[in-house]
Amino acid sequence: MKKVPVLEIFGPTIQGEGMVIGQKTMFVRTSGCDYRCSWCDSAFTWDGSQKPDMMKTDEIVDRLNDLAPGRYSHVTISGGNPALHEGIGHLVQTLKQQGIKTAVETQGSTWQEWMLDIDEVTLSPKPPSSNMKTNWQQLDFYVERLKEEGKGQASFKIVIFDIEDLKYALAVHQRYPHVPFFLQAGNEDVKEADDQSVRDRLLTKYEWLVDTVTKSEDFNNVKVLPQLHALLWGNKQGV
Amino acid sequence: MKKVPVLEIFGPTIQGEGMVIGQKTMFVRTSGCDYRCSWCDSAFTWDGSQKPDMMKTDEIVDRLNDLAPGRYSHVTISGGNPALHEGIGHLVQTLKQQGIKTAVETQGSTWQEWMLDIDEVTLSPKPPSSNMKTNWQQLDFYVERLKEEGKGQASFKIVIFDIEDLKYALAVHQRYPHVPFFLQAGNEDVKEADDQSVRDRLLTKYEWLVDTVTKSEDFNNVKVLPQLHALLWGNKQGV
Ligand code: SF4
Ligand code: SF4
Repeated sequence: MKKVPVLEIFGPTIQGEGMVIGQKTMFVRTSGCDYRCSWCDSAFTWDGSQKPDMMKTDEIVDRLNDLAPGRYSHVTISGGNPALHEGIGHLVQTLKQQGIKTAVETQGSTWQEWMLDIDEVTLSPKPPSSNMKTNWQQLDFYVERLKEEGKGQASFKIVIFDIEDLKYALAVHQRYPHVPFFLQAGNEDVKEADDQSVRDRLLTKYEWLVDTVTKSEDFNNVKVLPQLHALLWGNKQGV
Repeated sequence: MKKVPVLEIFGPTIQGEGMVIGQKTMFVRTSGCDYRCSWCDSAFTWDGSQKPDMMKTDEIVDRLNDLAPGRYSHVTISGGNPALHEGIGHLVQTLKQQGIKTAVETQGSTWQEWMLDIDEVTLSPKPPSSNMKTNWQQLDFYVERLKEEGKGQASFKIVIFDIEDLKYALAVHQRYPHVPFFLQAGNEDVKEADDQSVRDRLLTKYEWLVDTVTKSEDFNNVKVLPQLHALLWGNKQGV
């Protein structure tokens, strides 16, 4: 069994984004990412500023139970890009055996077979403002495998900063019309320490996105969401 | 075909609450309610201050298409209590034939057969702070019928103002453990005109609810949400 590089374990808190928004959940955040998005809000997972612990499944589960004995039934595995780590498969199996649901988010650049055991897979390919390039063939492969073999639900979540990002989102939505589709207002202040200022800018951006999407004929069956954790706690880590 | 008393038709906007939070949708708001919740945020639907139009299905659909030609695929029927009106069944059938999804919210005090045709039914029985009393037998009947015959999804959404409300929510959650369960922070300022003040109080209440729920062993598989439309637009009607 391979160990997993874990950067932080925290909770219970709520999932602030995407298809399971509001869900009471624990977070296991892995380190490492194959991307370098210009606006990454978890650059500490890959910029060398924080060191991960190499952890076995049992150690991760023990830590979850120490933090929240009897107080969770859902675990979110986040990153960085958790799909870099094969060892997560064993963790997911172990949690499943205890009746605990799992969710994961990845940009979809690397595949792991354990994706098929996850209850809620959020695919978040990155729009032009990130300065990253999408590998569409790899994304096709993801969607196919999850559709044909996955037991859980999959959805897309695209972070939007501007009109170019929305054009990109439309290409994703049109390529995979049957996959539930979420648009998320981008956080332009990932280094801002003042919560009120983060909140105001986020809501302004969210209002712009709602306004643009509701006026559009291109996006009808979509959900438009802000980041609830950022509205509550600004850019604080570990909440 | 019975006409429906319609108070307002608006959109596209987003659904700000519950199981389809963030969804781009049109709203058809019916008038009339058999409840008088102390904190009702749509008292204008039943307090006589605004008069409904008695509308046929075709008139409602025409109005939707005038407002948003080609720009919607989802309609939310809200109130008041829409389940008072038999005529909504014909509207739901007509929308369905056009490939349009429908959602409804009701406290679950009155049943209509057209509930079985709705894609997303939100049941929002009212906690003690409302001063209303729940008819549990009627709620049992609702959950049974929707589970056995409904083609869509059903969920509970309980508005929470205080600890007594949370105890009530727990009774609902334990009585129907298999129904997806949402808790919503109550809006204490339904008459406040200052958006910033509404926003601040809502987020404070939401943070309290998140904090209480994450510390509790009673609520694990739950989602905790604010009202997004109130965060954006305060108490404005018709957005
Ligand atoms: S994929 Fe995610 S973790 Fe990686 S750089 Fe981009 S935003 Fe950051
Ligand atoms: S059931 Fe809903 S519409 Fe009726 S009084 Fe209560 S909050 Fe208002």
